[in-house]
Order: sequence, then C-alpha cells, then structure tokens
Amino acid sequence: MSLTDDALVIFTPSGKRGRVTRGTTVLAAARKLGVDLDSVCGGRGICSKCQVSPGYGTFSKHGVTVQADALTEWNEVEARYDRIRGLKEGRRLGCQACIQGDVVIDVPAESQVHRQVIRKSASDRVMVMDPATRRFYVEVREPDMHEPTGDFQRLAEALENQWQVKGLVAEPHVLHKLQTVLRKGEWKVTVAVFHDHLGPPRIVDLWPGFHDAPLFGLAIDLGSTTIAGHLASLTDGRVLASSGLMNPQIRFGEDLMSRVSYAMMNPGGDQEMTRAVRQGLNTLATALAEEAGIDPAEIVEAVFVCNPVMHHLLLGIDPVELGQAPFALATSESLGLAARDLDLNAVNPGARAYVLPLIAGHVGADAAAVALSEEPYKSEDLALIVDVGTNAEILLGNSDRVLACSSPTGPAFEGAQISSGQRAAPGAIERVEIDPETKEPRFKVIGCDLWSTDPGFAEAIAATGVTGICGSGIIEAVAEMRMAGLLDPSGLIGSAEQTGTWRCQPEGRTHAYLIHDATAEDGPRITVTQGDIRAIQLAKSALYAGARLLMDEMGVDRVERVVLAGAFGAHISPKHAMVLGMIPDCPLDKVTSAGNAAGTGARIALCSVAARRAIETEVRRIHKVETAIEPRFQEHFVAANAIPHATDPFPELGRIAPLPAVSFNTGGSGEAGGGRRRRRG
Amino acid sequence: MSLTDDALVIFTPSGKRGRVTRGTTVLAAARKLGVDLDSVCGGRGICSKCQVSPGYGTFSKHGVTVQADALTEWNEVEARYDRIRGLKEGRRLGCQACIQGDVVIDVPAESQVHRQVIRKSASDRVMVMDPATRRFYVEVREPDMHEPTGDFQRLAEALENQWQVKGLVAEPHVLHKLQTVLRKGEWKVTVAVFHDHLGPPRIVDLWPGFHDAPLFGLAIDLGSTTIAGHLASLTDGRVLASSGLMNPQIRFGEDLMSRVSYAMMNPGGDQEMTRAVRQGLNTLATALAEEAGIDPAEIVEAVFVCNPVMHHLLLGIDPVELGQAPFALATSESLGLAARDLDLNAVNPGARAYVLPLIAGHVGADAAAVALSEEPYKSEDLALIVDVGTNAEILLGNSDRVLACSSPTGPAFEGAQISSGQRAAPGAIERVEIDPETKEPRFKVIGCDLWSTDPGFAEAIAATGVTGICGSGIIEAVAEMRMAGLLDPSGLIGSAEQTGTWRCQPEGRTHAYLIHDATAEDGPRITVTQGDIRAIQLAKSALYAGARLLMDEMGVDRVERVVLAGAFGAHISPKHAMVLGMIPDCPLDKVTSAGNAAGTGARIALCSVAARRAIETEVRRIHKVETAIEPRFQEHFVAANAIPHATDPFPELGRIAPLPAVSFNTGGSGEAGGGRRRRRG
Repeated sequence: MSLTDDALVIFTPSGKRGRVTRGTTVLAAARKLGVDLDSVCGGRGICSKCQVSPGYGTFSKHGVTVQADALTEWNEVEARYDRIRGLKEGRRLGCQACIQGDVVIDVPAESQVHRQVIRKSASDRVMVMDPATRRFYVEVREPDMHEPTGDFQRLAEALENQWQVKGLVAEPHVLHKLQTVLRKGEWKVTVAVFHDHLGPPRIVDLWPGFHDAPLFGLAIDLGSTTIAGHLASLTDGRVLASSGLMNPQIRFGEDLMSRVSYAMMNPGGDQEMTRAVRQGLNTLATALAEEAGIDPAEIVEAVFVCNPVMHHLLLGIDPVELGQAPFALATSESLGLAARDLDLNAVNPGARAYVLPLIAGHVGADAAAVALSEEPYKSEDLALIVDVGTNAEILLGNSDRVLACSSPTGPAFEGAQISSGQRAAPGAIERVEIDPETKEPRFKVIGCDLWSTDPGFAEAIAATGVTGICGSGIIEAVAEMRMAGLLDPSGLIGSAEQTGTWRCQPEGRTHAYLIHDATAEDGPRITVTQGDIRAIQLAKSALYAGARLLMDEMGVDRVERVVLAGAFGAHISPKHAMVLGMIPDCPLDKVTSAGNAAGTGARIALCSVAARRAIETEVRRIHKVETAIEPRFQEHFVAANAIPHATDPFPELGRIAPLPAVSFNTGGSGEAGGGRRRRRG
Repeated sequence: MSLTDDALVIFTPSGKRGRVTRGTTVLAAARKLGVDLDSVCGGRGICSKCQVSPGYGTFSKHGVTVQADALTEWNEVEARYDRIRGLKEGRRLGCQACIQGDVVIDVPAESQVHRQVIRKSASDRVMVMDPATRRFYVEVREPDMHEPTGDFQRLAEALENQWQVKGLVAEPHVLHKLQTVLRKGEWKVTVAVFHDHLGPPRIVDLWPGFHDAPLFGLAIDLGSTTIAGHLASLTDGRVLASSGLMNPQIRFGEDLMSRVSYAMMNPGGDQEMTRAVRQGLNTLATALAEEAGIDPAEIVEAVFVCNPVMHHLLLGIDPVELGQAPFALATSESLGLAARDLDLNAVNPGARAYVLPLIAGHVGADAAAVALSEEPYKSEDLALIVDVGTNAEILLGNSDRVLACSSPTGPAFEGAQISSGQRAAPGAIERVEIDPETKEPRFKVIGCDLWSTDPGFAEAIAATGVTGICGSGIIEAVAEMRMAGLLDPSGLIGSAEQTGTWRCQPEGRTHAYLIHDATAEDGPRITVTQGDIRAIQLAKSALYAGARLLMDEMGVDRVERVVLAGAFGAHISPKHAMVLGMIPDCPLDKVTSAGNAAGTGARIALCSVAARRAIETEVRRIHKVETAIEPRFQEHFVAANAIPHATDPFPELGRIAPLPAVSFNTGGSGEAGGGRRRRRG
C-alpha cells in the first residue's frame, strides 16, 4: 500500500486506471475514471446494480499488489443485502466498499450499463446495450410554500443534480400522476427516462420508492403479410417472447401494390388500413406481454421496421405516391414519436416509438434493419444480402461501398400463385428430392421429420395430411426437376415420353409433374405445372436481375458471399437456390442464412441508441439503385429466365452436379420472358 | 453618388446603415444589415410584404444626398403588383428595387416583422410583434428516384436554405398532408412554422403555392366562473373577436375550493372537470372564429392564463394538492404543447398551445399575465396591482423588486353571497349614491344611463326592471352608507331612530337599508342587510390584508399608485373602494383601472415570443408571499374589518370627505372579526 493520500485503482476489463483519494467509494471512483459501472439508486445501497469483484494479490500485468485491506470491510448495507437477496461470492457493492489502497476491480458484465450480450443467433456477434430508456432513483426536495416551485421542477432538478439528466421535458401524461407518486414514495421515486439522439430527455413513467422491475421494449417487423414482434428486456436485450400475426390489412389487398390501389380507389381507404394495422399492433403487444408474463405497462419502447408502404400506412400517410414514379417518400429519415401517436395504447402510456429510416421508395426500414443486423458496411468480403419477401430487398457491398435495391419478386416464393401452393404451415411440402435415375420424388412436410418414402410416414402425417407445397418446397421441386432432366434450360416440362417417367402428365397444351396423389383418400393431387415453373422463373429472374444490377453498378461479376435473410431465407436450400439461378454463383459454403435479419436489426436498434445513430448514418451513405427505371434490369431479367446450363462459369463450386443438357421440342412457347410480368405503377 | 463600386444605404427608422454592392436589392441589403424588413415569399415578388419608401434629396441628418436614380427603375413585377393590388404612392417592393447609389430607405411599420402596434387600451404602451408562428414561402426540390430523400427532408432543406429554419421536426399531422400539398402547389408551398423558445421549429400547416391568408391565435383567460377569449391576428395583434362563456365546470362547484373538493370526493371527478372545460374551450374557439368570420383552421396558436386550480384542471392534473398546505403545484413553469394535447380540436390540427408560468400555489398564470400587462418590474413608482375575483391576486413592486400574493376574497365582490346580489348584467344596480342629508338613495342600473331619480327612468328600464345589485353596486352602497352616517365604523347599520331615515328597517336582530322596493309591481325589494355588510367587510378585509402583508414585506406603509385590474376593477369606483378600505390609501388620481389585464397579458404573450421569455424570467424573480400561513395576514385581516374613520392618515387626498364619527349602540355583535372566515384547506 502506498503511503500517499491517494490510491491507484485499476478497473477491468476496461483497463481504465487512475488515482483516487482514499475513502472514495468504488462507484465514485468508477464514475471519476469514466468506467461503465451501473447504478439505479445513485449509490444509496438499494439497487445492487453496482456489484464489483475486487482482486487481491499481485497483478504483474498491472504492476500492482493488492492488499487484503485495500477495500473497507464488508458493511452493514452489504450484509443486509446479502441476507435478503444474496450477494455472489467475492462480490462487493461498489457504492459501499471504499478504496483504502491500490486495488484491481473487475466490473462483471451484468454490472455494466453498456454491457455486451452474446446473441443467440448463429453468428457470434455481440450486442452492446445502450438503451434509450433507463431507470433512475432520485430523492426529490419537498415542496416549500415559501419557494413555490412545481413538483415537476424539483424532480427535474433532482434528475439533473443526481444523474446529470438535463433539459427534461414536461409531458401531460407524467404531470397527471406525478404528485401522487411523489407523495406515495415520500419524495423518493424511480423514474424511467427516455433519452435518445433525436430529442430532449422525457419521463416515460415513474414509481414510488425504489422500483426494480425491468423495462421492456418491442421490436416489430411490420410486413405486408405478417407482423412479427419480439418482446425484449431493455436491461440485457434478452427476448422473452416472440409472436406474429397476420397483417389485418390483408383484407384490403394481398400485396403492397393492391393496398396502394385500394388507397387510390377508395377515399379514406388509407385511413382504414392505418386503423387496421394499428389495431393489429395492439393485439400483438398484448399477446407478447401475455406470453412473457409481464404487465403491458412495462413495455416502454417500440421499434418498427417495415417496407415503405407499410411505413406510410403505419404513420397514417397515404401511400399513393409510392405506387407511381418517382416513388417519392413522404419522409425518409428515422422518426421518434410517442407510441400513442401511433395509437399503440396497449403499452405504457408514456412509451416511445422509433421507426428506422427508409433507404428509398422501394427499399424500406426493413432493409435498413437487415443492414444493421448484417453490417455489409463493415464487411471485408463483397457480400450480397438478399431478403426475400413479396419484394426482395437486396444489398451488395463491403466496407467501401454499399448498394441497395428492391426487386418485385411477387408472391411465388411464398407459395402464392402456385397451383398447389400454400403458406409454410404443417402439412406443406418443404423439401423435395427427385431421383435422377428413376425420376421418382420423395419429400418432407412441415411438422414431420420423415421423408415421404420412410416407413411410418403416412401415420406420422395422419393429423394434417399433405396439404400443398410451400415456397421452399416449390423451389426445391423446380431445381430437382431441372437436375433430374425433367425440365429443359428454358424451363419447359418434358412429356412422359421425353422424360421417361409417367409422372410427367399432359395438362392442357403443356405438362405437369405429379409429386403426390392422395385423391384416392379424398386428398389433394399435388403437381408442379408449367404455370408454376413460369411463376418461379419470373420470381427468380427478378431476384437475380436485381442482384446483377447491383453487381453491374459495383463493377463486379461475382460476389464473395451471399446472405439469405428473412424467414424464407432460413428455410431455403442454398444449393437449390443456386441451381435455380435465384442468386449469383458463389461457393456454396459462402452462402449463409441470417434468419430474420430485419427482426434482429429491429432488436439491435431497440437495445441501442448508438445503433440507431449508426444505421441512420449508414443509410445516408447507401447508394440506391431504382430497378423500375433501369433498362439493364429488364435485360438481366429476360436473360435470367433460363435455368442455368451445364457449363458452369464457376467449376470450383464442384458440389453442384452439372445439369443435363436436355432439350424438349417445345412446340413454341411464348410464355418465357418478361411479357407477362406485372410491373409496378 | 459615390464613384466606388458600393453604395451607402441608410434604413429608417432603425438608423441602421452600411455599404452594399451596387445592384443589391433593398431586401438583400436589409438582411445584410440586420434590418427588420418582412418577406414571406423570400424575394420572389409575390408577397409584397417588403414594401419600402425610398427618400430622395438631401438628408443633412444622415449626411447624404440621394439622387433620383439611387434605385433601379420601377420594374415589371412592381407594375403588375400595382395594377392588380395597388402599391401606395412612393412605395417600392424591396425585393425588386436594386440599389444603384447612396440611399435612405424608410421601412414602414407594416413592413416590419417585429412591428410595434399601439394597443387600444387607455395606456399608450406599444405592443411589439414577435409571433412564434410565421409563414414562409418556399420552393422545394422535386423528388428524384436516384436520390430518394423524402418530401419532408427536401421541404426541411428548402426552409433551411431559403429561410435559415434549422432542425425542423417531422410531426404526423404534417406528414399526412405534405405530399398532396407539395404536388398541388407544384413544389411551391407556403409553410406556417411555429418556433418559440421552448422547442425546435415545427410545421403547423402548409398550403399550395403562395398563401397570403393571415394567421390567428386565441388569448384565453380561463377563470373559475368565466372563460374569456380574444381572437387576434398574429400579423399585427389586432383583436377580431372577443367573447366569453360560463365555465362549464360551474356545475361541479361555484368556486375553486368546491371544485377541489369535488375532485377529492369523487373518483375521476378531476377528469370530468377537465373534459368539461376542454369542451367549453372548443365551444369558445368556434364562437370566436364565427364572430370574426374566419375559418377555425386559421387559428394556429392559443395562449392560456388561469389560476393554479384551473391550470391543473386544464392540463388534466388532479388539483387536490392545491387544496391543502403546502399547496404544491404539479408544475410551475410555462408549458408548450400541441393544442390537441388539450383536446382543443376546433382549431388547426397543428395548432400549438402556450400556458404562462404560475407564480405560486395560489398565484397563477393569470397573475403572471397581469404582471406581463402591467409590468410592475419596470415601474419607477411603487405600484400595487390588484386583480379582484373570487381570489384576489395582488402584486406590489417596482423595478427593484416585485412581491405577489393571493388573498381569498370570496365571491361577495362579484355579487354572490349578497342578499340582493347578482352578477353584473342588465337590470343590476351598479352605481349608488346616498344623500348625506336626506339619506335618500339614487342608483343606476346596467343597461341604462339615467339615475333612478331622473325623469323617464322607470320607462327606460321597463324591459329589465331593477333585478338586483352587482359587485360594484354593493361596494358603492356600503361606502355611501358609511359616508351618509348609516353605518358606524364597525359596520353596524343604525336603526331608523339612530340614522334618522325610515329606510333603515329592522331585520331580525339587526337592520337593513332599503334601496329600492318594487314589491307593489311584483318586483324585488332590494336592501343592504347587515349580513351583506359583513360579507363585504370580510372580502375587503382579505383584500386589504393581502396588500398590507406585501407592504410589510416590502417595508413600506404606503404605495405610490394602485392599479385595479380585472373586469370588476374596470367598473369599481376608486373613491368608494378607498372609503371602504379595500385598497390602501393613495392619491385618488393615482388609482387607475387596467381593464382585463390578465386578458391583455395573454394577448401580449400570444403576439410575442420575447414577451413569453420576459415573463418567464420575471416570474422567477417575483417573491411570493403565502397568506395562508402568515400570522400577520390574520392580524391585518382582523384590523381591516372596520370601515376607516374620519382621521384620514393622508389628508392631502382631499377629495374624500371626512367620514362621520357615528357610533350606534350595538347591543354587542360578535360577528365582526375573522371568526366566521372560511379558510382554505
């Protein structure tokens, strides 16, 4: 121990060090040295958030020896806390232990405000907590008749003096309950303060005394078809509940453009749709709170990601301008709002909402969220990130430059507009294999682990039966048909004679391939028709053309890795996607799935103001490419219609067997190409 | 003319001068030199707000000679404007006329943003316009698919580039209509921007093209009994309509304390009252717009002044804390809100509301408004300002120091709790004289200019009859009774025998003075009873005691002038008020009426952000004295119960005749003093 009046204190893992006067509490020392040590009660020994682990002995790395009496002894507050709630072995309360000599103090992750949390997703990236809403315990001056300031002003003064929260804004919802809570808590209250980068600090809610209950937020991915939400803790980002519901706007139109049309054709139609989606959000919030077993009033924030049309309808803006060139957004930047401004009344009345920025008229906040999750702007490799929905959002880039576009794939990848198509649900065929020799299929359905050729399959699926084929199923089916030589490169299905299998049966002027026939048991007859092939060809051509357009713009003819995002992306087989030509060729092991990257991005933004700032900056830097007016998009689209030939431009891929160079006598089909394509506007 | 490349330009009346490059427009020169020259269109020759009057010839005061060609010639824009709308003789459009040589340019008042407007009130003070909401004409960049920023972002950029409006906040109500308006105006729009000292600039509303319609605001004095409102132009402060309605909260209690009780006794009672007053405000706003002949959507601001209880109920805050010591306000500082936060939906959906700061738990924003109107903090004389209502707000001070208190006068001064009392309305006695010799009364009633003794009086008042006696009437009656020797200094009414008039008639154990008897025509019998005298004594004692308390605190025993504010103050006779002892003695010619000073203060705040800042600063400096806990208040109150004696401490007043030193045999009355006094809490 040094003989001087101050002591050396070294905090790990930050490595921050400095000298403090002996007698300083560990918490005060941490604050002085800018060490991230949490505290809600401000050092009053109530909250236990400031737990630290002092180290003793010699730390040669730090050049210091810590004596056993480097900290004051365990005091009464710590003893009481340990008795009532339990203090982990070796832990001290930072606000109670005072520094008496040189010391090394470890701040465990759970005692850091800006803690790093390992996400559960496949990638091992960490999420740094930097929540906009934090709780502060304060002691407020009592009112004095001779100095008649308002209760709010004295609370604001306490937050400024005790927590350096400056410029607090008084809002009606707080003023309503302020006086009751202050008196109930005998002038000691816990205040949840929301403070992001967009505005002044605001009180979200307050409670009498020390209030330790955690705060929660919603991360909502508002899709055209589905509204998916996560309920996460704002303390550590943990997801307590995830749920989804059908977007109630479905009744106004299946896809975005039909909703824009609905708004165009029906006066007040946009407002009808706004009401519908907002009702849906309240339903979802209630369901999530119930699933998590929390009071909905503990939800104090909501973050929204969505495509531009959903964005406008959420905000009550008529989306009509998004239906026609130049696809002008009403507003493109991020928005901070009161949740009640969005009629989100199922949550805390003071809850705040944050909407991520939009990238362009067709590239939404959902794409921004994918970017936030996948961070192409930090990638060393040139990454192609594809989020497939009714529209595909495509990002291409690396740390030098990121490009974005949207491509109108239509709903075929989601099983819609497919003769036996259905949404991904139990009973739907999701995997397909066709034996190249026998041309016989086998398949798996959702909800059952067996292949259709396995013993016991019929019994295992008795509950649902085989009901149809979903998006990933139809992609595998088409790719397998091509690999088995049932399709020619133009996508034409051969006859039984041409293909050598009875399963290729005539249907009108073309043929269909029979996958499953349950008509004997009054079940469905599931085929892949020529029309299905065309629908998939149109969708994959649009996706591929979008990716190619970005590659042209970037001046490259290959990408180094591909990330498939979205629920669909998680289920799709990279091999089949590549056989089909959905995505540019790339080593198969460089094709990864990011899961629901838009939802992950929403969660990241929910947990971190720094992340909100970051994506706002990055979105401004992303270069947008508008597919709708780009002649090369049409060229790529037409060129991409075929299903790739055996002469693979990247033979090193290896794992994909060369495709057969079959050729059927088509009898002339005018169906291929872009002629039938539904264009926007 | 100078031979150099620049020219001297001198603006009057500001006297600002400087050199500008020849060819500079007058508007650009004014901006460069910081001269207040209005413009809505930004120099596009559309708005004509920048009209100036150039002077020619020799200006020895400025040491400059202005040649006839100092400005460029009248151009086509000016000619067209003159043809269509007319340009006053000698006027030029500042954005069209370019400076070619040394010139003196006068900016007429109507071309100044911060113009000074003479108010119509008796005092000649000027009101300086500094409105929070201003209109700006902007040309917005059209959307570009290749640079997909939102319409809002391009509008914000235009406001920043063309008008230096920075940090504009996007609000839903603007986003809803933004796209339609921008397209209708072909990317030229007029935007009303609200920007005060409390927050960032916000768009209130916007219109296609150049929109010249004026903007209006409401100045609302929200009283316990009456809600009074002015509708004023935000361009020049002119009042277009004034109206009032009964506060619909009356049904929950006549006075403030009974409303606080209602809130205490009835769960949700405060919310009932909040709804009631907000409905009343919408009714008033609609009525004012109708009276002024304007569209209610042209009302873009509302300023509120009110006592603390009304303040809390307006904001939806339970006023229960104001009913008991220490009378803690939920919030004391000024508030900037959206009008819709107060459910004020009859006005523009983007309208803003400003609520003046409160001085203390019993001294409200109405008192702050009186201070803003009467400016005691700028007074050289020591001024006593009294705003009489159910509570009297009292300000005492000068430029050194201002004190404030509130005194619970009760409703007697408003004619309530008086046996023949009524509100000031046609038929009410408002003036009374009693002949000191004959003891016979004469009176005037509201709605008739004749005295009751004048010929034709009976016919003139036939429509209403004499219905009762209002506040100013009862004060004059009591003072006149004292001057005629019908009352002794303790306030006791003498008998017919003691006073020598049959009009003093027995009533129970005391006497009453008959003023008017219409019972023969089934009309009322109007008397002043001993109970009435006591009620007036209690009220005036409270008022006087409050004033004395402030004088004690200030360390003075006289004031240099008295200002009577409020509707009541406008009708009261200073002489009678002083005889009664309502106000401290003071030369009669130093007693003035300020009319509805609270309403005037609200109007000043409505027209000027600088005034809002000023009153916020002053309110913080005002020293509050709480009467409810001050023992000296009780002492003064008891001492003030008597009606002053002949030995006038200020004989120079002269005009008040010495009061008779009558003394009646009281038979012992315990009524005088403060015993019966209703105390708060």
